[in-house]
Amino acid sequence: MSTATTGSTGYVNPTGDFRRDQRYIETRITADGRDGYPVEADRYRLIVSRACPWANRAIIVRRLLGLEPVLSMGIAGPTHDERSWTFDLDPDGRDPVLGIERLQEAFFARYPGYDRGITVPAIVDVPTGKVVTNDFPQITVDLSLEWTQFHREGAPQLYPEHLRAEIDAVNRDVFRDVNNGVYRAGFAGTQEAYQRAHDRLFARLDALSERLEHQRYLVGDTITEADVRLFTTLARFDPVYHGHFKCNRQKLSEMPVLSAYFRDLYQTPGFGDTTDVLHIKQHYYGVHRDINPTGVVPAGPDLSGWLEPHGREALGGRPFGDGTPPPPPVEAEVVPAGHRPV
Amino acid sequence: MSTATTGSTGYVNPTGDFRRDQRYIETRITADGRDGYPVEADRYRLIVSRACPWANRAIIVRRLLGLEPVLSMGIAGPTHDERSWTFDLDPDGRDPVLGIERLQEAFFARYPGYDRGITVPAIVDVPTGKVVTNDFPQITVDLSLEWTQFHREGAPQLYPEHLRAEIDAVNRDVFRDVNNGVYRAGFAGTQEAYQRAHDRLFARLDALSERLEHQRYLVGDTITEADVRLFTTLARFDPVYHGHFKCNRQKLSEMPVLSAYFRDLYQTPGFGDTTDVLHIKQHYYGVHRDINPTGVVPAGPDLSGWLEPHGREALGGRPFGDGTPPPPPVEAEVVPAGHRPV
Repeated sequence: MSTATTGSTGYVNPTGDFRRDQRYIETRITADGRDGYPVEADRYRLIVSRACPWANRAIIVRRLLGLEPVLSMGIAGPTHDERSWTFDLDPDGRDPVLGIERLQEAFFARYPGYDRGITVPAIVDVPTGKVVTNDFPQITVDLSLEWTQFHREGAPQLYPEHLRAEIDAVNRDVFRDVNNGVYRAGFAGTQEAYQRAHDRLFARLDALSERLEHQRYLVGDTITEADVRLFTTLARFDPVYHGHFKCNRQKLSEMPVLSAYFRDLYQTPGFGDTTDVLHIKQHYYGVHRDINPTGVVPAGPDLSGWLEPHGREALGGRPFGDGTPPPPPVEAEVVPAGHRPV
Repeated sequence: MSTATTGSTGYVNPTGDFRRDQRYIETRITADGRDGYPVEADRYRLIVSRACPWANRAIIVRRLLGLEPVLSMGIAGPTHDERSWTFDLDPDGRDPVLGIERLQEAFFARYPGYDRGITVPAIVDVPTGKVVTNDFPQITVDLSLEWTQFHREGAPQLYPEHLRAEIDAVNRDVFRDVNNGVYRAGFAGTQEAYQRAHDRLFARLDALSERLEHQRYLVGDTITEADVRLFTTLARFDPVYHGHFKCNRQKLSEMPVLSAYFRDLYQTPGFGDTTDVLHIKQHYYGVHRDINPTGVVPAGPDLSGWLEPHGREALGGRPFGDGTPPPPPVEAEVVPAGHRPV
């Protein structure tokens, strides 16, 4: 839920801790349609920015589950103004399916004067042009549990019932200290607030390193929702969070277990091939002018190490369980050459 | 010559390249006293900030040459306001020898209304309270060549005549692309100006790595002025320039030859023991509010690697030539515990 907040350009809270507005549109798209939005092919459009870690989760899950043929995807540009994500990557600056220039329009179509963050990921009901939901943690879970009739053959179980409690527990810690923790470090308005966030972040990364030392994935022996959620933060760690958010005890590349775990996922279909490092860097360094006033985007870091062997096959594990890896991305959704190390 | 510039708080040039005001007070303290300031014991005071790389050069050279007994040193605090470095580390906020609160006073004593940068290193004539010079590249050379009557026994030749042309050539490239190059990257006001500075910096670091692969020091087989000048930038590279100035293709610790060369010097008396990482971080992150508006100082990086073996003895070389290492720092000048990895 990277946010373009109506009427505000500030991310830093000068008095201390960064606070994320966690109020989202909680309408759900479900198999039984209980909220008025039943799962249907060709009805909805997932709106993302590749830059955004919360949207990146949905991109990965949609692809691992093979939902591309039934749930189309619109890609907003990496930067946004203070009011909205925009479709500036599309030739005429409009999303070709929704016909809108700004994601805001879909929010306003449902709630005129909507005054919370215009965030991605968001799912829009194409016939009405109204946003259905931007509740990012629910979106990926629902793709796994509600959209089953459209899953590809060989789709993995990313949120299997018998592991759900453990996945939820890991996700809670990872969200607080890592996914959101990097933002708390980067947008801290005081030295003390920063230090707390930094210390919790690295304590958690140390604990995750320990957990992953003898275990290939976070929960069970296959890729789950927990891995997806940690991955999208790790992919942004060296390119952005290390410098821009001052998460700099070490680079990810200097944490051997975690960086091997990351490389393993990066090299797995669905993860690296949905990661756009150029958009990631352009987004953070371009949008957060209150911590990077010049808007200059760093040239580094050298990420060629992401392609190096990770050696984690030796730990066993079955990436997709009884399922199979997804096929290559559809042509329209390939991350352009030069946007990531390949 | 870290600068506190009268009437200006901006370092970034919004239209492009960072330009360093390179006009200094060029009066020299010489053996023959040709400028009215002859070399004399107990007459002058070197004013530094440990944070400043240009001042750090003078601290190192003074110590390597053993000039502490005849040339006292005043240490300004790591941060300064827009007008001056200040003696806020001293108990009553005044330099105990000069009796001034702000370095500016010594500049004004000589030139009322002085309107260029109030910079360190500066040497002040104690009897009159007037600044003599802040011409940093000349200061270290003069300590080597003009203050010889006061050099300690075993003082090294840091600027020996037969190597001078080569030292000058190396220094020229290192100043432009590295010492000053990091500032050009960090204070670039446009993406293009940044990219140029970044690329030149890393091209030069690559060339220096190549030069140092089979050679222990930059020029000849002993430590010279050239090593002093490169060292002070390398000491600030991972703590500051990598993140704050976006010099982030790699960390120094990721460049094997250069980081071993750095560790070798860091572990040599006179180098690491004059390096105050806490002051360094407080200075850059605290003062440059136009690129770090919150003033938050990062907790990292972990610098314990600076103490690891460097293996460069295998390349031969005689650190101090026919001379000897300096004895431990005098007690009043010891960098406090906790300010650097030891």
